[in-house]
Amino acid sequence: MNADEFRKAAHAAIEEIIQYNQDVASGTLPVLPNIKPGYLRPQLPAAAPQHPQSWQDIQPDIAKSIVPGLTHWQSPNFMAFFPACSTYPSILGEMYSSAFTAPAFNWLCSPACTELETIVLDWLADALHLPKDFRSDSPGGGGGVIQGSASEAIVTVMVAARERYLNRRADAKGLPDPSPEREEWIAELRPKLVALSSDQAHSSTAKGAIIAGTYHRTVETTWQDDLAVQPDALESTIKKCIEDGREPYYITLSYGTTSTCAQDPLHLLAPILQKYPDIWVHVDAAYAGTALVCPEYANASTSASPSNSNGIIPTLEGLPTNGIEQPPPPPTQPPLPSPTGLLPTGPTVWSHADSFNTNLHKWLLVSFDASLLYIRSRHALTSALSITPAYLQNKHTDSGLVTDYRDWQIPLGRRFRALKIWFVVRSYGVEGLRAHIRRTVRVGQRLEALVRESDDGRALFEVLSKPAFGLTCFRVRPGAVPRQLLAEGGVVDGPGESVETENTMDGSPFGTVEQQAGEEEAQPTETATATAEDLANTFSKQVVETINDGGQLFLTSSSTHGKTFIRVVSGNANASEEFVRKAFEMVVATTREVLRQAVEESRG
Amino acid sequence: MNADEFRKAAHAAIEEIIQYNQDVASGTLPVLPNIKPGYLRPQLPAAAPQHPQSWQDIQPDIAKSIVPGLTHWQSPNFMAFFPACSTYPSILGEMYSSAFTAPAFNWLCSPACTELETIVLDWLADALHLPKDFRSDSPGGGGGVIQGSASEAIVTVMVAARERYLNRRADAKGLPDPSPEREEWIAELRPKLVALSSDQAHSSTAKGAIIAGTYHRTVETTWQDDLAVQPDALESTIKKCIEDGREPYYITLSYGTTSTCAQDPLHLLAPILQKYPDIWVHVDAAYAGTALVCPEYANASTSASPSNSNGIIPTLEGLPTNGIEQPPPPPTQPPLPSPTGLLPTGPTVWSHADSFNTNLHKWLLVSFDASLLYIRSRHALTSALSITPAYLQNKHTDSGLVTDYRDWQIPLGRRFRALKIWFVVRSYGVEGLRAHIRRTVRVGQRLEALVRESDDGRALFEVLSKPAFGLTCFRVRPGAVPRQLLAEGGVVDGPGESVETENTMDGSPFGTVEQQAGEEEAQPTETATATAEDLANTFSKQVVETINDGGQLFLTSSSTHGKTFIRVVSGNANASEEFVRKAFEMVVATTREVLRQAVEESRG
Repeated sequence: MNADEFRKAAHAAIEEIIQYNQDVASGTLPVLPNIKPGYLRPQLPAAAPQHPQSWQDIQPDIAKSIVPGLTHWQSPNFMAFFPACSTYPSILGEMYSSAFTAPAFNWLCSPACTELETIVLDWLADALHLPKDFRSDSPGGGGGVIQGSASEAIVTVMVAARERYLNRRADAKGLPDPSPEREEWIAELRPKLVALSSDQAHSSTAKGAIIAGTYHRTVETTWQDDLAVQPDALESTIKKCIEDGREPYYITLSYGTTSTCAQDPLHLLAPILQKYPDIWVHVDAAYAGTALVCPEYANASTSASPSNSNGIIPTLEGLPTNGIEQPPPPPTQPPLPSPTGLLPTGPTVWSHADSFNTNLHKWLLVSFDASLLYIRSRHALTSALSITPAYLQNKHTDSGLVTDYRDWQIPLGRRFRALKIWFVVRSYGVEGLRAHIRRTVRVGQRLEALVRESDDGRALFEVLSKPAFGLTCFRVRPGAVPRQLLAEGGVVDGPGESVETENTMDGSPFGTVEQQAGEEEAQPTETATATAEDLANTFSKQVVETINDGGQLFLTSSSTHGKTFIRVVSGNANASEEFVRKAFEMVVATTREVLRQAVEESRG
Repeated sequence: MNADEFRKAAHAAIEEIIQYNQDVASGTLPVLPNIKPGYLRPQLPAAAPQHPQSWQDIQPDIAKSIVPGLTHWQSPNFMAFFPACSTYPSILGEMYSSAFTAPAFNWLCSPACTELETIVLDWLADALHLPKDFRSDSPGGGGGVIQGSASEAIVTVMVAARERYLNRRADAKGLPDPSPEREEWIAELRPKLVALSSDQAHSSTAKGAIIAGTYHRTVETTWQDDLAVQPDALESTIKKCIEDGREPYYITLSYGTTSTCAQDPLHLLAPILQKYPDIWVHVDAAYAGTALVCPEYANASTSASPSNSNGIIPTLEGLPTNGIEQPPPPPTQPPLPSPTGLLPTGPTVWSHADSFNTNLHKWLLVSFDASLLYIRSRHALTSALSITPAYLQNKHTDSGLVTDYRDWQIPLGRRFRALKIWFVVRSYGVEGLRAHIRRTVRVGQRLEALVRESDDGRALFEVLSKPAFGLTCFRVRPGAVPRQLLAEGGVVDGPGESVETENTMDGSPFGTVEQQAGEEEAQPTETATATAEDLANTFSKQVVETINDGGQLFLTSSSTHGKTFIRVVSGNANASEEFVRKAFEMVVATTREVLRQAVEESRG
């Protein structure tokens, strides 16, 4: 493909991408593809072509074979998982990144790639109101690095945490470094290590523990405590580990868990963690962390009504008012909630963490992948991960004046991902990023209001968790389960299969979540009430599956501590109140139909 | 940025990219940037902008601040490391990938992303003449997956290898799974594990061993054996590990090492490895593996003159001749070598491996990142890495009919990288890919011929390794070191600092390369001959540093087993015989200047 052919091809690709975006934004394209597993193989040749094909041969296959097999994450009907935004400035970033291709494993391999990364990560550390300790120019040697995903960020810091722990213990023992006796002593200590996280933490901590070859144990949470780690539970888990001969070296705390956006209260947990200074504290803020770009999130206090330092929250239009702009409340109903349920945050709180990650590629308008990892001490990473063979040596690296990000991550090579971040941040401006977060939070609040306050919502559903960050978790109300089904008794799936599956794993005995005492308590007992609970869970999952089968709307169900529920979050650039209202209507209609069919089936 | 603004911005970006490519291809742009560490910070604002900026504000900064800080991997003067190609079809692939953004961690998250990946990896398994066992439809359940880099591929299979080894041993012991006694037994076995590789293997195996928390021990190679692992050395290393109470669970064998493109002879090593069937055999063919697209590489036999099954090698023009087209040899000199030094390859040989990786983003015209990992048994990967929490459950995954690539890799999310591979393979066709490999090998042979056969080359240099895959490794001939310098004695850096640095690592005692008995043997003794060796090494490194300081040509030096040398490889799409000839002239002139200055300095 020569320059002229590329120009033509790229212009055609741009028109196709614009048209695709318009089709997706309109919500007319079904969000889920209407295809069966294996759909693509019959449409493509069995082998690579022997001879060159022109773009005129290639491009039509995108519309014919690829687009029909896409799940459209930019659709306003995409309300599953968390959003994964894509924006035009991001696409431009990837174009240049590909043109400037360099597996930029060290500074010399493409200085601009390294230096722009350092600068935009400092920009974002400030924009997200993170502690100065996480900036590249902090006296303690902190800094940020772009990882491909939160799971990579987490396994990277787990390896650093493991090595830091082992070496600190060996140092405390006075073992000379290096020495065979130190090595042997560390080898004996290694299999005792245990990584901790809430039982709500994303599965990447469990997977990270497998990769790092350590145990993983969870701190139990409860619905009463909004599924957030409580100080007592943390302390007793640590003590139990130690009693069992395990040595905790690492903990993931979450700012916005995957299932319900629970926030582990670092400000309350810090006094306990300070008693165990060798435990590496990592904050996984993969989704919710980008909300910290808004002062009302970043400087939240324990007060019910969060505000920035002036008590003034700018609206979408940038005009200060005394609170986030809300749709007018329906008559005779309580007003829409403001973004409550926020725990104290801000630099002082995050200063208790050794590391912090948040994904710009979820909510903050940068296309996948762009996961920011901030660390307090780069030395802890590089001393675990640095390897410099002869062919990677150069005088710049030797000088110590440059950053070689290869030592901050698992892979050697890396893409020029800072470009798309730079383009997005400049195209939107910090105020534009805040406006996006606030607008989509408001969209989520509209859905929450419908579930909580509409006649249908109150009749059919219960909201399960304190809503925050635009995510609403709700399920069919046990009280809404038709009485004739309760009379039938246990005809539905027991909770043992469809519930409590979070964090269960197969395979390796290492990395296995160690069973907590009392874990069985949450299981429903065999009473009529329990059966209503079971049915509420089953129907909730069934509603999501029925909706997803239709392909018009994509939701996720989740399940924890005896409750299966519907998760709705809608944070991409095309999200709107209109679409969540339609989604709610579909959830209501589907729930009624699921209940009707269950009654019908129970009659024979 | 709305659609119209994007169209305009993208058109402007395309023109800039085309212009950049033309500037780079012409070789007029210095390959290395003329900037100092920290150059970018003063050029950019200290904080992210508060308000949106237009593309008209943003784009000029690319030419002003980014391009001057790039190392131009597409320059014909880029002859360092290995190539990292970027092509127009790749850029188109990244545009669509970004537009279709999905962190496609399972099939349902974007079926086209998963299915196209499976298909193009099967295409490439065949195009690279790999065993059918590595295809997704193989009866044994093999398949391919796109990883970000060879280092990710390697650590992924190392973790799978570790878990397979531990579980096989526990099974052999008859320990019930799961059971506390099995878990404890495995925990005791874990710290004994040792990963193996040649002392020439890429540093990613050493880093992988750190991440996996195991020892790493190397099999020693020698210059006499072309730095390839020999059967005796392999067997004695395995036995020594076992004697020392270590348990080898994994080995990296290389098809094209980083320093010299050495090939470990799997066909000769297989009989030994078959005695230890629990050792996972991985072939790292990161760079050289893509040459297997050519039958003359894929079906190489032990004969000195490789050929395909017909004994006919197609030329660049696709016309069969009885050998690769060569430039006419200079009078009174031996003919240019054909691509000799190839070990037997082909499906039968690779069938001895559990896994195999090669990077399309090095030599095969796909922009970074696109590293192919093939495995014989997907079960070995997924049983180590699969974790399915409730929010990732769906009926497609449960059906077993679909592939969830998240369980084949360390991260959860993944980009749609199959698109760019699909575009590149179709745009070039398999014959076009072969033509690229053959053309650039020929460019490398031209350089080799100059080093070996020109008057300057014979006077100044010695070629150190069997050249293959377009890489030439040579150094200043000890005999070319001026006699007056030898008389001066040890005024230069000893080999202890600049030599033998490969695989040396800091930090963690785990993952440390265990010292082999007899490693010191290669160190030169303090005789006049050794001093000439030392000076030859020092001058070779100095030549590379002097050239790189100039910024017009980018080379790498490397160092192993007592020899420091100059590596020249030129495999990107803009590589040409003209540019390697100019590079050779620069190497000659620089060498003469380095020697002249050394003589001058020795005079006082």
